[in-house]
Amino acid sequence: MKTNWIAVDWGTTNFRAFLMRHDAPLAELHQPCGLLSVEHQRFAATLQTLLAPWLQAYGALPIVMAGMVGSQQGWFDVPYAPLPAGMDDLLARLFAFTTPWGSPAWIVPGINGRSHYGLPDVMRGEEVQLLGLHALQPTAEHDVLLPGTHCKHARMIKGEIVHFSTFMTGELFSLLSQHSILGRDLPAQQDDDAAFLAGVRTASLGAPFSHLIFSARTRRLAGELPEPYIHSYLSGLTIGYELLALTPGQHVWVIGSPALTTRYRMAGRQMCLELHPVEGNLCFIRGLSELFLRLQGATS
Amino acid sequence: MKTNWIAVDWGTTNFRAFLMRHDAPLAELHQPCGLLSVEHQRFAATLQTLLAPWLQAYGALPIVMAGMVGSQQGWFDVPYAPLPAGMDDLLARLFAFTTPWGSPAWIVPGINGRSHYGLPDVMRGEEVQLLGLHALQPTAEHDVLLPGTHCKHARMIKGEIVHFSTFMTGELFSLLSQHSILGRDLPAQQDDDAAFLAGVRTASLGAPFSHLIFSARTRRLAGELPEPYIHSYLSGLTIGYELLALTPGQHVWVIGSPALTTRYRMAGRQMCLELHPVEGNLCFIRGLSELFLRLQGATS
Repeated sequence: MKTNWIAVDWGTTNFRAFLMRHDAPLAELHQPCGLLSVEHQRFAATLQTLLAPWLQAYGALPIVMAGMVGSQQGWFDVPYAPLPAGMDDLLARLFAFTTPWGSPAWIVPGINGRSHYGLPDVMRGEEVQLLGLHALQPTAEHDVLLPGTHCKHARMIKGEIVHFSTFMTGELFSLLSQHSILGRDLPAQQDDDAAFLAGVRTASLGAPFSHLIFSARTRRLAGELPEPYIHSYLSGLTIGYELLALTPGQHVWVIGSPALTTRYRMAGRQMCLELHPVEGNLCFIRGLSELFLRLQGATS
Repeated sequence: MKTNWIAVDWGTTNFRAFLMRHDAPLAELHQPCGLLSVEHQRFAATLQTLLAPWLQAYGALPIVMAGMVGSQQGWFDVPYAPLPAGMDDLLARLFAFTTPWGSPAWIVPGINGRSHYGLPDVMRGEEVQLLGLHALQPTAEHDVLLPGTHCKHARMIKGEIVHFSTFMTGELFSLLSQHSILGRDLPAQQDDDAAFLAGVRTASLGAPFSHLIFSARTRRLAGELPEPYIHSYLSGLTIGYELLALTPGQHVWVIGSPALTTRYRMAGRQMCLELHPVEGNLCFIRGLSELFLRLQGATS
């Protein structure tokens, strides 16, 4: 039986939903209505408003959600699944409830555990994209990079996430370009590939991060780096520094928007890394479909 | 002949001056009148106002200045001395002028060159403290750490600065505690040595910086780190990360205020580093006195 349902990725700053039929998206909705914009815990009312057209057309459809909606700052604080975690572990820990308007609803748990470096780490939302990648590209092992504000480097064996590490690359770029001395008194910025790649090359030298970034100031002082390209250079520094964690020659999937994966691939080529892009929405939809269809199989 | 003169450390955010007799300070002045607070390039008028009591008492005393006052954003853009640089190089490149009220005045050049990691680097002001340390502790070699917003790690051989590297430790701490997700929604913060040392220990594991700092979030989420101590933990992370650049067992001088050097020594003990504190003002006064007395010897 082909069922309609709704897939939701509800993060801190963005809300994305897909009206689904079986495992295929029929329509998409994208609003800047992240959890930070929800006042007085009005999660149910906000969701009902956002999904109103679909609920009116199809009734109280099942809704499966992932992302920060299941965090301490979200709708329900859904306990993390511990590493290693695969499809069955996430299914076993799905948080199920019924919305005020009668939709059966589920929130996918995040995952916690020790990173590759032995530090405590957490993810919420990326686990769905990782399951999706495994369904789309079913190989025995996957090394995966998910770029963003808080990038994740994950390793999967037979579709099970065995460990992952967070890199605050996107947030550090924002802090340095917007709030530090490196970004002070800059003219309007332009994207420049040469400045970006100069940043990547400089990062490849392996200097400590807190020293590395000062080169955005000294190269500017020395007139080596045109002022409109400082952000491009800083982007190259921060992404290049992150990519030092990978091994040259390693085959790594990069899940994200084309804009981000293109930038990572450009940096990767400079560093002799094979980065293979996969579209982020595709992975999310596929991962959540796998979960929903397994859930349906289990309950029908 | 014992001469009176004025030693000035004029930085981006602070102004510090010493009324000197030969190499001894008679009085000290400290104002938050850094270069950023000087409007419309009124450097001469600002300096005259700040020093008015001494100028009225002693006349148009000689004034020797160091710090960002000699930068692009300062009073005069004094060209850097290139590495390696010692007393003679700084003397040869002193920028001399006469103030509108008739004081003979000099600005010490900063130093530029390649860091230990091969990146372009600059300092302005710290070179005076380094010369002062060599005069106070005349050994053949000095490894020196100068903590602050932009920390410097310098190496001197026979009183000559052979290389140095900047670490943006202080600025990164401010960015992370004030503007990042790691510092969001925190209660009033308290200094806590245990949290600081936990940060140092975590940094010692050697994880990449952009991964390391995320532990301030995950340990908080896991309830391992009390919320009033997050800043102490972040301070330990950033200082510990910087100290990884030193070699265990290495004898390193730390020039700074007692508050800062105490914190660095606490971190250093945890990491088996021998850090020897020297008071920053003492080094500054001694370094600038060496320069001024040599200058006097040359011109009298």
